[in-house]
Amino acid sequence: MNILVWNENRHEQKNPKVSEIYPEGIHGAIKDFLTEAGHNVTTATLDEENHGLSDHLLNQTDVLIWWGHLAHDEVKDEWVEKVQQRVLDGMGLLVLHSGHFSKIFKKLMGTSCDLKWREADDKERLWVIDPTHPIVSGLGSYIELKKEEMYGEHFDIPAPDELVFVSWFEGGEVFRSGATYKRGRGKVFYFRPGHETYPTYHNQEIQMVIKNAVNWLKVTQTNQPTYGNREPLEVISKKG
Amino acid sequence: MNILVWNENRHEQKNPKVSEIYPEGIHGAIKDFLTEAGHNVTTATLDEENHGLSDHLLNQTDVLIWWGHLAHDEVKDEWVEKVQQRVLDGMGLLVLHSGHFSKIFKKLMGTSCDLKWREADDKERLWVIDPTHPIVSGLGSYIELKKEEMYGEHFDIPAPDELVFVSWFEGGEVFRSGATYKRGRGKVFYFRPGHETYPTYHNQEIQMVIKNAVNWLKVTQTNQPTYGNREPLEVISKKG
Amino acid sequence: MNILVWNENRHEQKNPKVSEIYPEGIHGAIKDFLTEAGHNVTTATLDEENHGLSDHLLNQTDVLIWWGHLAHDEVKDEWVEKVQQRVLDGMGLLVLHSGHFSKIFKKLMGTSCDLKWREADDKERLWVIDPTHPIVSGLGSYIELKKEEMYGEHFDIPAPDELVFVSWFEGGEVFRSGATYKRGRGKVFYFRPGHETYPTYHNQEIQMVIKNAVNWLKVTQTNQPTYGNREPLEVISKKG
Amino acid sequence: MNILVWNENRHEQKNPKVSEIYPEGIHGAIKDFLTEAGHNVTTATLDEENHGLSDHLLNQTDVLIWWGHLAHDEVKDEWVEKVQQRVLDGMGLLVLHSGHFSKIFKKLMGTSCDLKWREADDKERLWVIDPTHPIVSGLGSYIELKKEEMYGEHFDIPAPDELVFVSWFEGGEVFRSGATYKRGRGKVFYFRPGHETYPTYHNQEIQMVIKNAVNWLKVTQTNQPTYGNREPLEVISKKG
Repeated sequence: MNILVWNENRHEQKNPKVSEIYPEGIHGAIKDFLTEAGHNVTTATLDEENHGLSDHLLNQTDVLIWWGHLAHDEVKDEWVEKVQQRVLDGMGLLVLHSGHFSKIFKKLMGTSCDLKWREADDKERLWVIDPTHPIVSGLGSYIELKKEEMYGEHFDIPAPDELVFVSWFEGGEVFRSGATYKRGRGKVFYFRPGHETYPTYHNQEIQMVIKNAVNWLKVTQTNQPTYGNREPLEVISKKG
Repeated sequence: MNILVWNENRHEQKNPKVSEIYPEGIHGAIKDFLTEAGHNVTTATLDEENHGLSDHLLNQTDVLIWWGHLAHDEVKDEWVEKVQQRVLDGMGLLVLHSGHFSKIFKKLMGTSCDLKWREADDKERLWVIDPTHPIVSGLGSYIELKKEEMYGEHFDIPAPDELVFVSWFEGGEVFRSGATYKRGRGKVFYFRPGHETYPTYHNQEIQMVIKNAVNWLKVTQTNQPTYGNREPLEVISKKG
Repeated sequence: MNILVWNENRHEQKNPKVSEIYPEGIHGAIKDFLTEAGHNVTTATLDEENHGLSDHLLNQTDVLIWWGHLAHDEVKDEWVEKVQQRVLDGMGLLVLHSGHFSKIFKKLMGTSCDLKWREADDKERLWVIDPTHPIVSGLGSYIELKKEEMYGEHFDIPAPDELVFVSWFEGGEVFRSGATYKRGRGKVFYFRPGHETYPTYHNQEIQMVIKNAVNWLKVTQTNQPTYGNREPLEVISKKG
Repeated sequence: MNILVWNENRHEQKNPKVSEIYPEGIHGAIKDFLTEAGHNVTTATLDEENHGLSDHLLNQTDVLIWWGHLAHDEVKDEWVEKVQQRVLDGMGLLVLHSGHFSKIFKKLMGTSCDLKWREADDKERLWVIDPTHPIVSGLGSYIELKKEEMYGEHFDIPAPDELVFVSWFEGGEVFRSGATYKRGRGKVFYFRPGHETYPTYHNQEIQMVIKNAVNWLKVTQTNQPTYGNREPLEVISKKG
């Protein structure tokens, strides 16, 4: 399938610690393991023209992956609206980590998407809540990450259609760290881990979740719903 | 409780048929039966200054009722954002009929909120789907409306938190006509009936639903969630 | 995949009208189109020894399809419990039409599963409510059936995890006619149509839904969850 | 309202540690604070005749609270079925702690209700997930319990209608510790804390949750749904 990995790509330019972990950027790391899984992967970043996006590119994208953090506000509303329209038309969207505060995620959720957070090398353990879900295929009872940024409840999102993971944090918090939504004819998955200063996207189980997720996110070959004025399908009686 | 009834109030100015049914406007009709039920009801309309809204008024409103149709685009984004913020902070919102296409409803849903429609004097029968819900208190198996505008599926909304009513239409369609959502600390109820050329808001059972709904929508006295950077609640081990 | 079609197979013995429509039984008709779709299909019926079931057969079944009506009470509790256990362990279950009152469906739902009904040649129109769902792949806005038994709300089931279809009936009722559930590691789909005196299972679109459904119901290759007493994963402090 | 507190009341007879914490039994402790809140509270225990239950008592009960652990199997099926029927008819049910394995909870859920567990003085922190819910009224971001039994995911329940609390445990696990369901015309709330060797039901915030819960659980004055054979509401055309 055609996957587009969008990355803000600013931390990688500023922070040697980040560029050491992700020499080709977070987008490059994600591209690598998805390409290896047989997908056709393109990347785009904030500072490219039109943030690396085009109508043509979006139209042929089956699943868009989104990572942003420092510069959500710099993403132009025009492109946020185009991405939203494509989701409603059936493109899958995987929102990663600090993407919880991206314009596109907030627009699709309708809430603040706010949360508690801390950068303190918390251990994180992501427990599987829904063992029927294709997204957890191949995992055991949980994924353990030695060090991650903490995100804590309350997470201001609509109640997920499906709750897939809940995280335990060493510092005492919990978080709904894997949540699915349907919007229009498209599907959305929010997946929490992936702070830029940790090698989270090199973790085999995190990669497994992302690989499962893109398969689940790919639009089903259903027909586009139709809308607007309609003639009756049955005879309507005349009324006084 | 403090209820604010917002109405576009344009049909009433243009169409004698509408002003005959609702001589004091749709907002006036709703105000009447809610006042009689003991509530403190204020009204606001599109063409007033700031659409009749103010920070003070919104801040003291427990439940906002919204009816709009012809002029959704004329509602200023600034006020849509203020209403959204108040919902997230705990104000209840009852969206009526053609309000499905209002900026505020689309903003809270994240979808197009599109649907099929027809103005042809369809009979409508709203079946109760959730007999545990306070919103259906006092009703029988269904509400019957002799003539209404038809709205048909697919209705492009997120899956409701609770599905309360499903409508049957004479012309052959069905519609999720009563749907609840939680957004932030606030609650939202979408209730379908109420085309301006029919006396729907004079119907006793429709009034009963609206009276039940404002009670359900009123914010619970829960604390406002807190967000942002947090110290750990437990000791975090030092890691290599 | 391995599919087991279970049918009560009593109407077929008693009513010439039914055996004319389904000369090889409802189970035979379903077996035919699923076999043609490439599946390995077995059938079992009430009056066989152990209702045609065995531990071995259940253990190798990926998806079980269940049609019953007159004789739900004759299904032995022992086998109902075995089927329930297999669903919890990951076997998919497709419950058809009057199977809403089967012991296995009531056991998995926890409710009465009661409803309104009428045999009067109602026209039925099943509207697609969830256009993202693989189960509706290939369909238009609705499926139309010229004559069917009516089932009407209130349908006493838990709120579905996903609502896929809502039916319109000529006589004035609506019904949640396609509903998914997860139970344990298994998935369940209830699909309404299929009264024995109508050729519903010969309808191409109904067959399409059933073919889509078995694919969706097949268990994901996730690990079986583990339960019971557990050592701590972290050091627990001594307390006074 | 009329509340019935049912308790197995075996630990209290066997273990001095338990009878020291709850000299009048767990049921007595719960009765006390609910009586103080103005309710009419009755208690019943396993070893009374008919487990302390009667048709008359159940019929006049608005909300039933259930605590059991050692002797779930000794509860007679006849009474489990009567309690289930009362829930479907509109009685609220609050299932506490080890009641997750009670016959009545498993019957209403349709799943094994299994989980991971440990008795090791874990600290527990119950985080509020749904700040709109009347059940959390008056609470802050979480409830902290110094020592409790651990229950860990995967918890084999259907996806809750509403997820109200998620627990963090010192030993590394998480748990969906507050979950609501609707069954028939009745409501169910599962609330995790309350191991018999800890003074959990003396905790002010735990009492607050239970007091909020009974109010939420009390049946709404909706009409009982009707079921069975129905005449058409509209004319059904004759068909060939």
